[in-house]
Amino acid sequence: MKFVHFNWNGERHLGVLNAENKVICFKHLGIKTNDMNAFIIHYDEFKNNLNNLAGYPTIDLSPEKFLAPIIEPLQDIICLGINFLDHAKESAKFKGENFEERKYPVYFGKRVNDATAPYAKIPLHQSVTKQLDYECELAVILSKEAYKIKANEAKNYIFGYTIINEISARDLQAKHKQFYRAKSLEGSTIMGPCIVSVDEIAYPPQLSLKSYVNGELRQNDNTKNFIFDIAYVLEELSAGMRLKAGTIISMGTPSGVGMGLNPPQFLKDKDEVRCEIEKIGTLCNIIDKNL
Amino acid sequence: MKFVHFNWNGERHLGVLNAENKVICFKHLGIKTNDMNAFIIHYDEFKNNLNNLAGYPTIDLSPEKFLAPIIEPLQDIICLGINFLDHAKESAKFKGENFEERKYPVYFGKRVNDATAPYAKIPLHQSVTKQLDYECELAVILSKEAYKIKANEAKNYIFGYTIINEISARDLQAKHKQFYRAKSLEGSTIMGPCIVSVDEIAYPPQLSLKSYVNGELRQNDNTKNFIFDIAYVLEELSAGMRLKAGTIISMGTPSGVGMGLNPPQFLKDKDEVRCEIEKIGTLCNIIDKNL
Repeated sequence: MKFVHFNWNGERHLGVLNAENKVICFKHLGIKTNDMNAFIIHYDEFKNNLNNLAGYPTIDLSPEKFLAPIIEPLQDIICLGINFLDHAKESAKFKGENFEERKYPVYFGKRVNDATAPYAKIPLHQSVTKQLDYECELAVILSKEAYKIKANEAKNYIFGYTIINEISARDLQAKHKQFYRAKSLEGSTIMGPCIVSVDEIAYPPQLSLKSYVNGELRQNDNTKNFIFDIAYVLEELSAGMRLKAGTIISMGTPSGVGMGLNPPQFLKDKDEVRCEIEKIGTLCNIIDKNL
Repeated sequence: MKFVHFNWNGERHLGVLNAENKVICFKHLGIKTNDMNAFIIHYDEFKNNLNNLAGYPTIDLSPEKFLAPIIEPLQDIICLGINFLDHAKESAKFKGENFEERKYPVYFGKRVNDATAPYAKIPLHQSVTKQLDYECELAVILSKEAYKIKANEAKNYIFGYTIINEISARDLQAKHKQFYRAKSLEGSTIMGPCIVSVDEIAYPPQLSLKSYVNGELRQNDNTKNFIFDIAYVLEELSAGMRLKAGTIISMGTPSGVGMGLNPPQFLKDKDEVRCEIEKIGTLCNIIDKNL
């Protein structure tokens, strides 16, 4: 199923898409929560209300009415850096380093106050960065607490998937060495357009992933090409960290980001960035220097 | 004032220390919250109840009854790496790198599910690390949202200070390059024993900071020696990040950690780690391989 968060008649609601991709509001289904984190954590209490979606009223919504499915993540998002081989190469080249194959994943945290809606504007932050860049990523959302789990159990801990455009300030990454500040600028996590439940996508996910800037194809890869896959990451992280229900892990981006182009091209005012992942949907955002 | 969080008669309470360092429970003062984050954010509503602490019943508590003042931080803790010159040198030496003076702070995120109490045990995590290390640090807690603030306004945004023992797995830091996993192991944030309000300590804080392992002095420095001080950090971070009320920033550790010794000495089962900061208090924790 595809779960969505949206503005309707001046209020925020949660809903689900029916077979025709029309929105059914949770309140019509008798699901009494407006909080996606609570819905995910207490899903067992709600799932009977989702057995049959036929016959409920549907809502027509323009794309701008959709919100990030989880506006306030319960904790910072866990991100993987350098999790596609070609992106590892372009990243080393940009930094003037020799490319070395990665034996271990790169994990970092990304603070999110309010995740940005799928069609909202993105601040350019020109007073703090001259090198704002996009990263289209598949994100995994956990349904329950994972601690010391094995790779072959990983699927049982996944609630679903969404798209994150993991906006990054390359100059701040270089300056501060650790990525945290460069990844945590206000408005730099675009999320959505929905959460697709784990059962809806063959596991492990092999999904086409693309991004475009002003209509020009920039990234074009597939989530089957993760260097470290979801199962590996969940086993490794959960070995020492108790990953709570609702934890979001963004699995890293393929080559084709702005810093990888020759010459590098960073985001400018009015640029349109589109991120697409098969079976999930599209994020489409305009950069705005006045935000 | 010094605010504390403690177990008393089987329940968790907040309180304040009186002039004799005795605990007065908030419930006796008519402060109706048990949530330190809420207390900090809504401090203006409560402060009149704290005007006069004379004549209230006090509670005698052994050190083990105190809890981390903020067990569940609202977001990951923001940490500074390499914020004392001598620690920068010992860290470069351990990594076999040439020492380079830092022009920019190093910031990273540390996930905390449940901050560890001032006298609780610390898990050794021997299945994931062989190089567990301590870091005694001054942490700053924000009273209100800071966004695009200037260094000279920083003090107005500080609620108070606490001590954090920022437990770190050195082998995981090296393996994953980004520090997030190495810093986010379960039980690796010890916090307390209290939050000292900003008005209680001359600003900027010039506080003696010490740590001991099994009674042996290891770290001995002063918070006046931060390479990047609190004002600098709040101006820089808030330039692009909206730092919410309740944000915790741990200001980095001086030299004398286990990786800096010759030869390096990492924490072992049953080691006792003590962290002290002048005017705040003491954390004293035993390492436990069975946790």
